[in-house]
Amino acid sequence: MTRPRIRWGLVGGGQNSLIGIVHRVAASMGDDCELVGGVFSEHEVKCLEFAAVLGLDPARAYATLDALIVGETALPAGERMSLVTIATPNYLHYTMARKLVQSGFHVICEKPVTLTATEAQALATDVAQAGTVFALAHTYTGYPMVRQMRSMIAAGALGAIQKVHAQYFQGWINPIIHDREKWASVWRLDPKRGGPSCCIGDIGIHAFNLLEYTTGLRVVRLLADIDTLDPANPLDVDGSALLRLENGARGVLAASQIATGEENNLQIAVYGRDGGLRWQQENPNRLDFLREDAPATLYTPGHAYDDPVARDASKLPPGHPEGFIDAMGNIYRGVVRAIRGEAKLAEIPGIEAGVRGMRFVAAVLESARTGGRWVDI
Amino acid sequence: MTRPRIRWGLVGGGQNSLIGIVHRVAASMGDDCELVGGVFSEHEVKCLEFAAVLGLDPARAYATLDALIVGETALPAGERMSLVTIATPNYLHYTMARKLVQSGFHVICEKPVTLTATEAQALATDVAQAGTVFALAHTYTGYPMVRQMRSMIAAGALGAIQKVHAQYFQGWINPIIHDREKWASVWRLDPKRGGPSCCIGDIGIHAFNLLEYTTGLRVVRLLADIDTLDPANPLDVDGSALLRLENGARGVLAASQIATGEENNLQIAVYGRDGGLRWQQENPNRLDFLREDAPATLYTPGHAYDDPVARDASKLPPGHPEGFIDAMGNIYRGVVRAIRGEAKLAEIPGIEAGVRGMRFVAAVLESARTGGRWVDI
Amino acid sequence: MTRPRIRWGLVGGGQNSLIGIVHRVAASMGDDCELVGGVFSEHEVKCLEFAAVLGLDPARAYATLDALIVGETALPAGERMSLVTIATPNYLHYTMARKLVQSGFHVICEKPVTLTATEAQALATDVAQAGTVFALAHTYTGYPMVRQMRSMIAAGALGAIQKVHAQYFQGWINPIIHDREKWASVWRLDPKRGGPSCCIGDIGIHAFNLLEYTTGLRVVRLLADIDTLDPANPLDVDGSALLRLENGARGVLAASQIATGEENNLQIAVYGRDGGLRWQQENPNRLDFLREDAPATLYTPGHAYDDPVARDASKLPPGHPEGFIDAMGNIYRGVVRAIRGEAKLAEIPGIEAGVRGMRFVAAVLESARTGGRWVDI
Amino acid sequence: MTRPRIRWGLVGGGQNSLIGIVHRVAASMGDDCELVGGVFSEHEVKCLEFAAVLGLDPARAYATLDALIVGETALPAGERMSLVTIATPNYLHYTMARKLVQSGFHVICEKPVTLTATEAQALATDVAQAGTVFALAHTYTGYPMVRQMRSMIAAGALGAIQKVHAQYFQGWINPIIHDREKWASVWRLDPKRGGPSCCIGDIGIHAFNLLEYTTGLRVVRLLADIDTLDPANPLDVDGSALLRLENGARGVLAASQIATGEENNLQIAVYGRDGGLRWQQENPNRLDFLREDAPATLYTPGHAYDDPVARDASKLPPGHPEGFIDAMGNIYRGVVRAIRGEAKLAEIPGIEAGVRGMRFVAAVLESARTGGRWVDI
Repeated sequence: MTRPRIRWGLVGGGQNSLIGIVHRVAASMGDDCELVGGVFSEHEVKCLEFAAVLGLDPARAYATLDALIVGETALPAGERMSLVTIATPNYLHYTMARKLVQSGFHVICEKPVTLTATEAQALATDVAQAGTVFALAHTYTGYPMVRQMRSMIAAGALGAIQKVHAQYFQGWINPIIHDREKWASVWRLDPKRGGPSCCIGDIGIHAFNLLEYTTGLRVVRLLADIDTLDPANPLDVDGSALLRLENGARGVLAASQIATGEENNLQIAVYGRDGGLRWQQENPNRLDFLREDAPATLYTPGHAYDDPVARDASKLPPGHPEGFIDAMGNIYRGVVRAIRGEAKLAEIPGIEAGVRGMRFVAAVLESARTGGRWVDI
Repeated sequence: MTRPRIRWGLVGGGQNSLIGIVHRVAASMGDDCELVGGVFSEHEVKCLEFAAVLGLDPARAYATLDALIVGETALPAGERMSLVTIATPNYLHYTMARKLVQSGFHVICEKPVTLTATEAQALATDVAQAGTVFALAHTYTGYPMVRQMRSMIAAGALGAIQKVHAQYFQGWINPIIHDREKWASVWRLDPKRGGPSCCIGDIGIHAFNLLEYTTGLRVVRLLADIDTLDPANPLDVDGSALLRLENGARGVLAASQIATGEENNLQIAVYGRDGGLRWQQENPNRLDFLREDAPATLYTPGHAYDDPVARDASKLPPGHPEGFIDAMGNIYRGVVRAIRGEAKLAEIPGIEAGVRGMRFVAAVLESARTGGRWVDI
Repeated sequence: MTRPRIRWGLVGGGQNSLIGIVHRVAASMGDDCELVGGVFSEHEVKCLEFAAVLGLDPARAYATLDALIVGETALPAGERMSLVTIATPNYLHYTMARKLVQSGFHVICEKPVTLTATEAQALATDVAQAGTVFALAHTYTGYPMVRQMRSMIAAGALGAIQKVHAQYFQGWINPIIHDREKWASVWRLDPKRGGPSCCIGDIGIHAFNLLEYTTGLRVVRLLADIDTLDPANPLDVDGSALLRLENGARGVLAASQIATGEENNLQIAVYGRDGGLRWQQENPNRLDFLREDAPATLYTPGHAYDDPVARDASKLPPGHPEGFIDAMGNIYRGVVRAIRGEAKLAEIPGIEAGVRGMRFVAAVLESARTGGRWVDI
Repeated sequence: MTRPRIRWGLVGGGQNSLIGIVHRVAASMGDDCELVGGVFSEHEVKCLEFAAVLGLDPARAYATLDALIVGETALPAGERMSLVTIATPNYLHYTMARKLVQSGFHVICEKPVTLTATEAQALATDVAQAGTVFALAHTYTGYPMVRQMRSMIAAGALGAIQKVHAQYFQGWINPIIHDREKWASVWRLDPKRGGPSCCIGDIGIHAFNLLEYTTGLRVVRLLADIDTLDPANPLDVDGSALLRLENGARGVLAASQIATGEENNLQIAVYGRDGGLRWQQENPNRLDFLREDAPATLYTPGHAYDDPVARDASKLPPGHPEGFIDAMGNIYRGVVRAIRGEAKLAEIPGIEAGVRGMRFVAAVLESARTGGRWVDI
């Protein structure tokens, strides 16, 4: 049986954009998404050029989001774009997402979903009213072994959770933060474009999402410290928090963009009454399951014994590594199914995760600002 | 500047085919290939259905390769398919490849390129006459760190090579070979469809290619032993060879499909007068460079200090894992450039590698058949 | 040239004691220590039995520490025990150490050195007055790669330190803490015998020592949270702290004894302006040196290019793993040299490290007790 | 209950000898061996000096093995040395071992046990006649996880063995073999002192022993190739063999001392009908158990669920690494028990393993000499 492909648009992510490649390849993985247009550049000529590279109808290479909404809405239902991905700098997410949602488009939005928790909450209301599919590009939740971890915890493999530890270490800001002339070239270091937080908002939020995603538990309070490294820099480039979970378990979340030499070292470990699970993003196709009275076991993707949700997130036989773009592909796959009404968005972080993330960022900043007070989240 | 995309066709790799997904996603990675048609199934209905899933013109969903050649050749030059991928079972490769090459199509062919060395040599002649691009899907050569290894060796980082070691261990044949009723369901165990070798032809050939690809040296003689495990099974499911390289260096190549529990454990280690390099497919984004008088160094993709050829094979920043399909994507990227005349096919195994591989398979079988004699290759 | 061996005594560490084996084997590694007596049990008969097992003069198998001091002091200088190791439960450390130091014995003391910071400070005064050698059994500082890390940081390999991260995760308390009947069998859970902290005092203190030992920087403030898991349990079994170093750098220290399934997972990572260093106790013979503009390098013991202090801590050629007892052996080796006046105790944590450790424990407890306030240390 | 310690002597292994340290520390680990004398140097003065360092009776610091045998035999039974370790260069093993065995001493001998298979067989006859304990220092068999592997295979965890792979790669000969002036300084490169093989006799033999030790199967035929690298060098510095086991399984054994940059990379993998086991010497405290239908499990020492023989080989709690000397300590522990009649030498390679090893070396040399013929072993 043949079902029509989802007509998809991309905002941001043009010509040399890495995130654009990631989204375009990810969307192509399931044979069920078709790129039909987008806003590939603020510059109309570049936008058209890129549409030509992609073999797209130039009429659907829009110069602005507003033009896209007008243009697509005018098309017959069977031709109209139904899903739009927002891959622009942070400060544009909120306005764009609202407009798209209010106009009835399904949306995949890069994180952070907005610049503030208030905005995120407002957007959540819009999404609820529109009844559309809204997914957040928390790519790491698309890895099969992250889903395996979530499923095992949900199934009780660890018993009651009693300790969590998440870290996300990168070093890429290091050469920039020590050279003030370079600051302006990095939008994440500009509060107007990147928002009120750099490190926590960009990567701490991933670790936070991973923690709530895998454990199914909420963080309810935190105590945090942040570092801007240079007093002239208004934004955190390093931040850590002590956490309390809703069930009373303690945890630590540590994030840094000045961990010199680190590439993309995101790790999470969760320990319960009956066992522990550890996962590392840089070696994503394994999951260590630790137990007290038996040897550790090592889960890998592609096996019949994996949880169905993990199996579903793997395209290849065991031992054929899938990577970051494949993880993003699983986000797209889930969104397509949700749009088609085949499945709920259960495995994909949505607007609720967006709200949680923005509250987390706000709580970290507030705790740090007050010199270290417990802040509810 | 906008260049037209390469019009691409796929033979085999339909609906539920894993290798089909790999090729389609890989081809999409560079925004420069456009799937326009193919032969997706022997069954016409299925072929059309799949074309519909992909949003293709049903007129270009051909029932046979001959129909494809006739149909495409009839189209104007600006519409005609120019690149065709052969992703069928082994026994079809030779005939299909010859027809396509002789008809002027560029070809990407799954390995093994043919069933015999004689056929491979004949095909080489055709390719030379046609002057078209012919690439072999030795996917592992598309990994950035394999290319880094090749470049470092070519640049003399290891000095004169004095020892090589390649292994490729899988376990997937184990449950099959011990259950004769399952044999018929696996075309690789059927000499008519899979050819004269199972283990050596399917995976030993990858290890062999990797060895010649990375070292730039030819294996000139070998001494081999194979195992069919069950006397009723005509094909090897395990095989190993002692190697002599053209410069006199010794090596070992070990392959097995009955290494129970192994997933896709392909490894290569090369040692020279001045250092060693080690790579493992299951953790592909690292390359260990061993030295005598300095700490080992660990190369990873995405860095400015990587060799240009390795850098070019990586789409993402450091620490964002790329996997098997990304490696295949680099094969496609190279083929597209070669078709466009922008670059030679230097980094991509071609028909010459195909001939070498078939000679290797023949030599292993010959050495084993004679009870262990050195056989030239 | 032959030098007389150091006459050594052991207090605690009898018959079935693991820590006793560790100390006896460690002391034997350099051919320069000779066990001549000790207090191997509170029970006189057991003490004598164990002396017989070891082939010791029964007259030097003392029933109490006081008897040992009297007995040994009465011996001629050339026969008298000069070095004593204290391997008893925590609550005995302080009294025993004071008596031994005041009587002129050199001492190796298990950690924590005392139960309180006040006691540690008092002991420091005694050590200063006595002028004897006093070493703390922070075994992990005896690993070659920990010393390599310290030396590299001291030599400026990382530039200014800007981020530290230490964790020490074990799971062994998990089955005990969930079964109140077992509590009494574990002296570390008894405040009278183990002191005011379980997790932080037993293992957090190791992570803290490692952090100050390797960086050469002091932690000046901290913000902490601890967990007793069961309200009836008066002692922490999990604790974490946000740290500020004397140079302003931030850090995290996380310790847990309820990280189910973890064995002895002590890790430290230090990042500076120019690079990072990472070490893990469970795989102790490697040290990762991360850099921004060059591949990571991997240090291992036994090489000419290792720092002299690291080289000195390795007895075997590269690739021959040395372990926990070998690390302790390096503590003994350093103590012997200090006693002989050949070298200072530079590489060995002494009473000053003991004072620092007790202040750290007190600060964590104070910060946690006040609901999370920054506490100076 | 107190049992007298075993009076032990050491031949070779004096002052700066690495192997001497290994044996002395290893022997001390169980509190059940007492060094009473030995032949520590060919030079009488050095021998006496070293005895003084160790605090030994100078009368038992013998200048020659003959003197040791005469001297010790003259002592009363309750004082006489009962166990002697031979840690001299290879060419002395045979004569020394025979004399000691014929004189009623128990012996621990470094490998290779002799220079030829004939000598080994003759020695085996002596051992049988004497009824003494004779152990070979195949240190790697002392690792807990090697014993776990052996026990699991014996218990049928893998089912019928169908594939084995052993490799032992070092690089230390590389800088020597390329500098002829250095050759004379290395006794292993001198056939008179090291015997007829360098690489195979020194390290290949370890891999061979490990293979037969863990599988419990004999290698019955092999096909080999060796390399001397420099035609002027009479001895192999690299060698590999294709193997046939007594049950028909195939295998590969690869050894090299010119694998530049490798430290002590000994690995073994064994695959059976029902699973696989992999172990690496450079990370010795883990054992991977691979299965077809379940996640891999990772065994580590010190657990109640480990095989009793593995548990017995571990002194410390889980996560406290034990290393090479600890492995040798387990050889000593087993020998002591055998001398005391408490247990058979089951876990310790004895003279039979020595005979097997020498036959293996002879077979490799013979196969290589004949240009690659299958040779029985």
